[in-house]
Amino acid sequence: MSFLTLSQTASAVLAETPKAEYGSFVLTSVLMTLVIIYAMSKLGGELSKRLNLPPVLGELVGGVVVGVSALHLLVFPEAGATAADSLLMTVLQWLGNLDAAAVTHIFQSQSEVVSVLAELGVIVLLFEIGLESDLRELTKVGSQAAVVAIVGVTLPFALGAVGLIALFHVPTIPAIFAGAALTATSIGITSKVLSELGHLKSTEGQIIVGAAVIDDVLGIIVLAVVASLAKTGEVDLLNVVYLIASASGFLLGAILLGKFFNQSFEVITEKLQTRGALLIPAFAFALAMAFLANIIHLEAILGAFAAGLVLDETDKRKELDQQIMPIADILVPIFFVTVGAKADLGVLNPAIAENREGLIIASFLIVVAIIGKIVTGWAVFGKPGVNRLAIGIGMIPRGEVGLVFAGIGSASGVLSKPLEAAIIVMVILTTFLAPPMLQWALKDQATDAVVELSVGD
Amino acid sequence: MSFLTLSQTASAVLAETPKAEYGSFVLTSVLMTLVIIYAMSKLGGELSKRLNLPPVLGELVGGVVVGVSALHLLVFPEAGATAADSLLMTVLQWLGNLDAAAVTHIFQSQSEVVSVLAELGVIVLLFEIGLESDLRELTKVGSQAAVVAIVGVTLPFALGAVGLIALFHVPTIPAIFAGAALTATSIGITSKVLSELGHLKSTEGQIIVGAAVIDDVLGIIVLAVVASLAKTGEVDLLNVVYLIASASGFLLGAILLGKFFNQSFEVITEKLQTRGALLIPAFAFALAMAFLANIIHLEAILGAFAAGLVLDETDKRKELDQQIMPIADILVPIFFVTVGAKADLGVLNPAIAENREGLIIASFLIVVAIIGKIVTGWAVFGKPGVNRLAIGIGMIPRGEVGLVFAGIGSASGVLSKPLEAAIIVMVILTTFLAPPMLQWALKDQATDAVVELSVGD
Repeated sequence: MSFLTLSQTASAVLAETPKAEYGSFVLTSVLMTLVIIYAMSKLGGELSKRLNLPPVLGELVGGVVVGVSALHLLVFPEAGATAADSLLMTVLQWLGNLDAAAVTHIFQSQSEVVSVLAELGVIVLLFEIGLESDLRELTKVGSQAAVVAIVGVTLPFALGAVGLIALFHVPTIPAIFAGAALTATSIGITSKVLSELGHLKSTEGQIIVGAAVIDDVLGIIVLAVVASLAKTGEVDLLNVVYLIASASGFLLGAILLGKFFNQSFEVITEKLQTRGALLIPAFAFALAMAFLANIIHLEAILGAFAAGLVLDETDKRKELDQQIMPIADILVPIFFVTVGAKADLGVLNPAIAENREGLIIASFLIVVAIIGKIVTGWAVFGKPGVNRLAIGIGMIPRGEVGLVFAGIGSASGVLSKPLEAAIIVMVILTTFLAPPMLQWALKDQATDAVVELSVGD
Repeated sequence: MSFLTLSQTASAVLAETPKAEYGSFVLTSVLMTLVIIYAMSKLGGELSKRLNLPPVLGELVGGVVVGVSALHLLVFPEAGATAADSLLMTVLQWLGNLDAAAVTHIFQSQSEVVSVLAELGVIVLLFEIGLESDLRELTKVGSQAAVVAIVGVTLPFALGAVGLIALFHVPTIPAIFAGAALTATSIGITSKVLSELGHLKSTEGQIIVGAAVIDDVLGIIVLAVVASLAKTGEVDLLNVVYLIASASGFLLGAILLGKFFNQSFEVITEKLQTRGALLIPAFAFALAMAFLANIIHLEAILGAFAAGLVLDETDKRKELDQQIMPIADILVPIFFVTVGAKADLGVLNPAIAENREGLIIASFLIVVAIIGKIVTGWAVFGKPGVNRLAIGIGMIPRGEVGLVFAGIGSASGVLSKPLEAAIIVMVILTTFLAPPMLQWALKDQATDAVVELSVGD
């Protein structure tokens, strides 16, 4: 018998434990949310598959349908939504006969829980991608990946910022901010599409994943630079040096320690006799690495990816893959549907006057966003016959990273309304266009020998 | 790149998005908490196994070690703890250089998230137990289970309440409350121990699980009665009738609809082509049933159990079992460690004066708690050769249900300090004694042919 429902039953009579009562409804609302998320991820994913598109695109669209753009079933307070904006909360209020204060509390808790579940989803996804990636393969293409990442950050940034200043007479600081938003690459979306298409282990796939990881680190640095520029007009050089040092130190340390840890890991798991003997140590290791990355101001997902790379070297890899898969199946869709739900397609509506200027700037940003990344493929050296177009396209989706840049730009107050809308439009379109484009670019290429990730059972 | 860490990086510079900053630390604190939970569950579980005891006992003890009784790493605000009481929050405050308001917010969010994860853990556990149980077997022992549950509720209640009034001169209302706390059975602990010992599918196992489910429903009714008695001095008969009707309607409806739903379920899963084709519909169904049970004021876990029973009838059962297992492996320990963490062993300390009177009452309650449930085995009819002692012992652990009764008693203000402490002591001891006792009672009995649940890989 669970703690919370009993409390609810009792407090309905006693009316003296309001917090526990809220708690029970928090569980109720999370259960509702998860059922909606799974329904939409399957509806969208299957439809997408039937249309011969990557399933993750459908999951994103499924999120859009239930999100802030359409049904308002799944909205989040970060974007300014209140409990009254959430259709789910309205239903819950009616079902539970709750007052406004209770619903506000439940709405915030539900958003918090679902956000953490989504974060755990992308952590598990990157752990899985790390397990699927081969460290030796990845180091082989390391320098190519670095070049792709660096070109893919500098080119869109320069083209975007200069273009906005020259063509649209945008002031310098907002132009730099918009340029920064163009640098992002969504490692989550890009690696998910690659694994769905069975190209994660190809040279192209490994270059894209490697470049996306490096891009992620560069993105943190770019953001720190831009944010301090927006605030003080100066760059906090010490912070930049710290970020570069900690990022390099973390990734190299993880790889070097990997060999040592592998052996202890196998010794430990072989000694354990209770359920989850392999899974729990591996999962706890991934979470610990994610924690470590997070606490030194890197991304949690970088830690999980590094953990996957390390454990990929163990003999238990196959077995571990098998056990991580169902966990990824239930957690990863929460991430993608949530990303879709947070994308506000309202900015695409040309009927609203203030969107029009934004849409014009957006057209420019989208061209830069696509061209600036596509050309990165041609920066790859020493790999004749590599699919350069696919590599470039793989770097296009801005996804959740782009939404963060837009959100922070909005919070900092440096962006004008049209420019902010333009960035959001750019993010949304690159996110939704990249999966089908990548599929098209890879269509004539052989898939991975063992397509473990692309089929569920 | 995740939403929250990027926000954190930016807000460290901008200092304008405090909510997003908190959000990032919520993830950090949840990651820390989960790593601690997994470490303790494995340490405790393995040690317990080495001592030839059920692993779940070790997980509970592991929770006690990190919980409110000892290290204070994992404490919860429901029991009156603040962020300053949490060692984990103190560490986080130091790591992140946070102010008190931020830590309070993070502490509440972390507790909310971990509580929901624990609830999802026991939901998945009961779904798994439902999948392992055979509906036909369960209906065969249905009347025996009902008798066991009814005797196991009325006997401890009557003995406890009358004894407290006669021997300890406790007033009527608090005596009735304490009697009610004696009626509970922790279906989570009892079914977990049974599956660990490989006796879930035996006649004894199925009678215990069936009786525990019925006990769960009776517990909700008893609690509603007692709570309304404590508040108004009268019993809200309408509410009792409603609870009985909805509980019976829900369980019977689920079973009757099962046959129909099985077929649609198989048709749906066979048509799906994307990852998680079997798992996502099954998991979403379990969550939807949990939601439904929760919203009609039943326990969420009853819904999950019913969902498991229904899907047990499908041809895909084996495959589904395999995929649910890793999910249970990572979620279920959160539940047991949390239950242990919430148990305050401080009440067992006889050096504190006010505990002494409580410990004397507790000795009486423990005797009633054990005898009142053990005799239920002898209420089983028409099953010659059944292990009556094991059935009785299986009903002993009060677990999280007992903690809820104690918590509600505390909130209602009807319990004196010594009586409240006595109830908590009774709950803790029955919870920790039952697993080894059940193992001992079942030691000479053959285990289930296929012990799918007792080994992790």
